[in-house]
Amino acid sequence: MSRLPLQGLLVLEFSQYLSGPSAGLRLADLGARVIKVERPQSGDAGRRLSIKNLWADDSSLLFHTINRNKESYTADLKNPEDLVLVKKLIEKADVLTHNFRPGIMEKIGLGYPEVKKLNPRIIYGAISGYGKEGPWKNRPGQDLLLQSMSGLAYTTGNAKDNPMPFGLAIADNLCGSQLVQGVLSALIRRHKTGTGALVEVSLLESLLDFQFELLTTYHSSKKLPTRSKVNNGHPLLNAPYGIYATTDGYIAIAMVDLKQLAKAIGCNELLTYDQNVAFSLRDEIKSVLAKHLATQTSAYWLERLHAVDLWAMEVLDWERLTKHEAYTTLQMEQTITTSKGAQITTTRCPIRINGERLYASKPAPQLGEHTEKINKEMIGQ
Amino acid sequence: MSRLPLQGLLVLEFSQYLSGPSAGLRLADLGARVIKVERPQSGDAGRRLSIKNLWADDSSLLFHTINRNKESYTADLKNPEDLVLVKKLIEKADVLTHNFRPGIMEKIGLGYPEVKKLNPRIIYGAISGYGKEGPWKNRPGQDLLLQSMSGLAYTTGNAKDNPMPFGLAIADNLCGSQLVQGVLSALIRRHKTGTGALVEVSLLESLLDFQFELLTTYHSSKKLPTRSKVNNGHPLLNAPYGIYATTDGYIAIAMVDLKQLAKAIGCNELLTYDQNVAFSLRDEIKSVLAKHLATQTSAYWLERLHAVDLWAMEVLDWERLTKHEAYTTLQMEQTITTSKGAQITTTRCPIRINGERLYASKPAPQLGEHTEKINKEMIGQ
Repeated sequence: MSRLPLQGLLVLEFSQYLSGPSAGLRLADLGARVIKVERPQSGDAGRRLSIKNLWADDSSLLFHTINRNKESYTADLKNPEDLVLVKKLIEKADVLTHNFRPGIMEKIGLGYPEVKKLNPRIIYGAISGYGKEGPWKNRPGQDLLLQSMSGLAYTTGNAKDNPMPFGLAIADNLCGSQLVQGVLSALIRRHKTGTGALVEVSLLESLLDFQFELLTTYHSSKKLPTRSKVNNGHPLLNAPYGIYATTDGYIAIAMVDLKQLAKAIGCNELLTYDQNVAFSLRDEIKSVLAKHLATQTSAYWLERLHAVDLWAMEVLDWERLTKHEAYTTLQMEQTITTSKGAQITTTRCPIRINGERLYASKPAPQLGEHTEKINKEMIGQ
Repeated sequence: MSRLPLQGLLVLEFSQYLSGPSAGLRLADLGARVIKVERPQSGDAGRRLSIKNLWADDSSLLFHTINRNKESYTADLKNPEDLVLVKKLIEKADVLTHNFRPGIMEKIGLGYPEVKKLNPRIIYGAISGYGKEGPWKNRPGQDLLLQSMSGLAYTTGNAKDNPMPFGLAIADNLCGSQLVQGVLSALIRRHKTGTGALVEVSLLESLLDFQFELLTTYHSSKKLPTRSKVNNGHPLLNAPYGIYATTDGYIAIAMVDLKQLAKAIGCNELLTYDQNVAFSLRDEIKSVLAKHLATQTSAYWLERLHAVDLWAMEVLDWERLTKHEAYTTLQMEQTITTSKGAQITTTRCPIRINGERLYASKPAPQLGEHTEKINKEMIGQ
């Protein structure tokens, strides 16, 4: 890649954990220089948040995954001398991001109005849990809690299950990517107007946006969507949409015509259902289908379904996936060597530019690793 | 808003269904002019894809939700005369998006090399299911199938459940937002270099990127992550992370210290577990907790948990959510009047710029509604 898209842009990341840092990772992989501004001694709280007790060097593996391809600058924002230096960095930056609770940056003296005075061209990206107003504004902006309050937990699992969270940090991820979209669009405007902008996103609004189909349907029908009793795949979709067990695994079946499906898999009972009851009788239809599919292997069914071009695929776990040619063809993996020599295999940026995959071998920084260099280079001391 | 960030940009959307059109919706809400280029007679296949049999005017409610704030131009890309007109539009456009299967646009004569010759400054955004190569490249790029093949279905639900899909179109949504990020970053580069770019994303790479923590952990530990037996919230996280039933509803509990939790809810049995077994004994700990929490109301527990600042919240469905002050404060809804007078209440763009919420009252277009106007305005005929 001769020139990465965001080459030349300087991003200061006052963010920690996942939502803000995932935005920084994307900006870094697209070519921006991203400097984490971290507390001395402890740094980004994500450094100490280990999953399955996995570590690389002194920080959690999770931290390395989210913060590769960045630099680290330590500053105590409550210390006036450090704050002076940070303000000098802000004067040179194109973008600043933070995900503190509402009011914290303002208390430090780094709210948008102050920062704008230091640097009118800066794009100031702020993530909150629930927005800056309202009764929940000081509640913890944590992914599972947001999933639970946003209605999202009623989309997944079957009707009689407890409300069920997605098994990954969906609010953090979506919100981080919305921040990137807002920041990049504001940079585009800056080319025309010369002025920066305040870009605000929240975990809750991100999840409401994600549920735009459900919410629009709810406003229109005034009825709560319900999960199907068995093999739920999406609360608004017809049978057979869902995942089904076979004798040796599982297959997924998406939108297909019931008659075509019945013929392809030789299920006479299914033939009796007309397409126009595919939503109203979906529980019954799915039960018939589940019973029938449980009698043969996944390969047996997929051969029949694919022969007539019906939308079905096998369900894979990570072991089978990562060995599959369809996965290896993508070349989605990259190995990073940390500054202390540990090797970490992780994913690359999912966006390709001009046919090239974007890899970046730079590891996550040690806490404060670049403070001195940045002081010399940018502040002249 | 004096000037929306992407005002002045022209986007041609050759995309249908959800992934590509959701990218177009975001670009439109940020200020771009988005023209859907659609087949005569039928148009975007999403016009006929109804959920719960809900329609507005002649198109599905779903189509209106995804395609509000756009224009529609009809062209038969296999008809040489129409193709000449479309090429004239391409000469004037800043961005083109499509989500056809690999090879289709090339066959029409609108692959990136041809389009680049017509307009070297264009950003050409292409979405595929599985990338352009590999054994799955011609498989249907459908959300549930991608969830199933990407390993994602093993993150949600409990250990003994079938693999379980997220109950919403996560692959489409993430991929659409990655396309926006790639396209906007390429527009930023164009300001410096004057040249356009090819931006490619796929549903599969989007879901692999989303699972970056899981995949990195898997590469490092060589062990498949497993869902907890009960109350699973995230396959890599300690007890108590999950959703629990109370006497009158459900509460979510995120990362909390076990001893603090035990004291807050008065659970002596829980007090016997040390924090360092919160992962290895998570099934047992979660079972103890689930039994205890089932004895009182949600409000009872939340009062105790919040008194000591532990991360817990109530689980809400859409009815309770949309009546809650925390939701109404966001002002997330907007009502759109379709060109035939139907009213649709839907969500707004989740990004705020300079403190302003971005609303857009323009409805989804009727098929070909703007063809004549666009021909006059841009092609002079």
